[in-house]
Amino acid sequence: MEPIPSQMTVVGISKPGGPEVLLPETRDVPKPGPGEILVKVAAAGVNRPDVAQRSGSYPPPPGASDLPGLEIAGEVVALGDGASRHKLGDKVMSLVAGGGYAEYCIAQDAQAMKVPAAYSMIEAGATPETLMTVWHNVFERGGLQPGETLLVHGGSSGIGTMAIQLAVALGSKVITTVGSQDKADACLKLGASRAINYKTEDFVAAVKEATGGKGVEVILDMVGGDYIERNYDAAAMDGRIVQIAFLGGAKANVNFVKLMTKRLHHTGSTLRPRSNADKAAMVAAIEAKVLPLLEQGRIKPLIDGTFALRDAADAHRRMETSQHIGKIVLTV
Amino acid sequence: MEPIPSQMTVVGISKPGGPEVLLPETRDVPKPGPGEILVKVAAAGVNRPDVAQRSGSYPPPPGASDLPGLEIAGEVVALGDGASRHKLGDKVMSLVAGGGYAEYCIAQDAQAMKVPAAYSMIEAGATPETLMTVWHNVFERGGLQPGETLLVHGGSSGIGTMAIQLAVALGSKVITTVGSQDKADACLKLGASRAINYKTEDFVAAVKEATGGKGVEVILDMVGGDYIERNYDAAAMDGRIVQIAFLGGAKANVNFVKLMTKRLHHTGSTLRPRSNADKAAMVAAIEAKVLPLLEQGRIKPLIDGTFALRDAADAHRRMETSQHIGKIVLTV
Repeated sequence: MEPIPSQMTVVGISKPGGPEVLLPETRDVPKPGPGEILVKVAAAGVNRPDVAQRSGSYPPPPGASDLPGLEIAGEVVALGDGASRHKLGDKVMSLVAGGGYAEYCIAQDAQAMKVPAAYSMIEAGATPETLMTVWHNVFERGGLQPGETLLVHGGSSGIGTMAIQLAVALGSKVITTVGSQDKADACLKLGASRAINYKTEDFVAAVKEATGGKGVEVILDMVGGDYIERNYDAAAMDGRIVQIAFLGGAKANVNFVKLMTKRLHHTGSTLRPRSNADKAAMVAAIEAKVLPLLEQGRIKPLIDGTFALRDAADAHRRMETSQHIGKIVLTV
Repeated sequence: MEPIPSQMTVVGISKPGGPEVLLPETRDVPKPGPGEILVKVAAAGVNRPDVAQRSGSYPPPPGASDLPGLEIAGEVVALGDGASRHKLGDKVMSLVAGGGYAEYCIAQDAQAMKVPAAYSMIEAGATPETLMTVWHNVFERGGLQPGETLLVHGGSSGIGTMAIQLAVALGSKVITTVGSQDKADACLKLGASRAINYKTEDFVAAVKEATGGKGVEVILDMVGGDYIERNYDAAAMDGRIVQIAFLGGAKANVNFVKLMTKRLHHTGSTLRPRSNADKAAMVAAIEAKVLPLLEQGRIKPLIDGTFALRDAADAHRRMETSQHIGKIVLTV
């Protein structure tokens, strides 16, 4: 193994602003503390919270790196005290507390997962954030069961494409909303049974029609705004609606009668502020129930495209067009 | 046992309107079908849905009696085929699908419960609706655990007074909102640790202060309207908010950010449309976990007052003042 340098190239946020504020910097290579591992980054996923952090609306939590980047894949090059799940030279993918836009990054030993045999490092770097978000919100929080139907808004996003595959692989039917025909095609190819173009169709009417009037048992929503009451309309009796973002706004004028009369559950969560213990528990559940499907290559992140680390600004520009289908990944 | 007459006196809704439309009528005594029992009514609880039904805004479900009255206590005087939980002469209390404002009423054998030894028939007639509503919404749906804190809006209502007693008896702390000092006194006497007068105090600030800034784990709300976002503010992380009515309106302009960032669960339910199987399951759980507390007299419905069946209009007038504390009961 090559020696670990004392310094590394990263991409930092020079000041809050547009993509152009993302600039290369030189930083010290961090040292893993107890329960941590140091990963030589091969690929880092780009996520919406990175864009929010760059623009200044989503500051990193106390104690976290100020660098963007919430998921990585790479090689384990140093172990902190007590880190025993992985060994030097292992290829791992992991959610990280920040700092993914770098040549080296600290991960929690308990949150790092073995890169599945069927995965490239780019695919692995595009996996942890969406996999953990979908697993926790759709299955643990939303309680999606085999035979039930899931409605995924934003089906062609990184989260959406993972949600479609995972729900279909675990025995559910998936309906999705998308904004264009090529996004619809991508979702149908991944296993969605219906892709509703929200620009030309009313998703509530389309969901009712696709479910024989019954509605869907679980809705994964990152839109909010006027979708909130429409989600109540589209949900089945005892349906669960899980909110993971508010791209359409968090404020809405809502009639809550159906929440009560249909006995809905409206909940939500964000991954980043969860404790390390909570994240480790999600990883343990995923390793038991989902990783075998990834090992077999039955579920893979859909990759929109890759950019070199130094071109992170272009990666953000791509995400902000919302024209991407699947994940955007930085290669190091 | 006296013979069962062929006809009986009831109070019916002569037309949609104010309390004066409640008028005595003569009807045939109903005959119990399979799994049903006929109860000679001694007392019938008055509930908000009766008022809504009388005013024309809450029609009875298909197949149910058109007479008001959702809970009764009395003596079993006839058994339908297969009704084996109770025998002739037993004193029972039961949720009913309607028809409680009458000398005789049909109940489901599986939903009728033995009148607790410590209870008068008036207390028994005031119990099933509130007991099942509180049990299902606070414990089954809201998942209140010993050591957690419950916030009950409308603490002096029939539902509220039952919720305070049940939550305290099962090991939780209860905070309640009320509209006057005498209602506050009644709630504190039942075991609430704090009664917030919503007319003079901000309940969110008072809840934060009473919980050391943490908020409450479960909220039982029958108000809605501008309480909805304030409930999100008053809830603890991972808190559950259960909506059982919207006395303050079902429409609200709400910021949903805290629903997501605090990982809240907002849900609700109404009892009347539940299937007989669902109601029987609630009764079975209550018989196992709660009836012993009633048998010992540790939990009793708070009785605001009683009216003769023929004076049902006065009972409705009393409820519509919202000055009552506890349950209003008709005696037959």
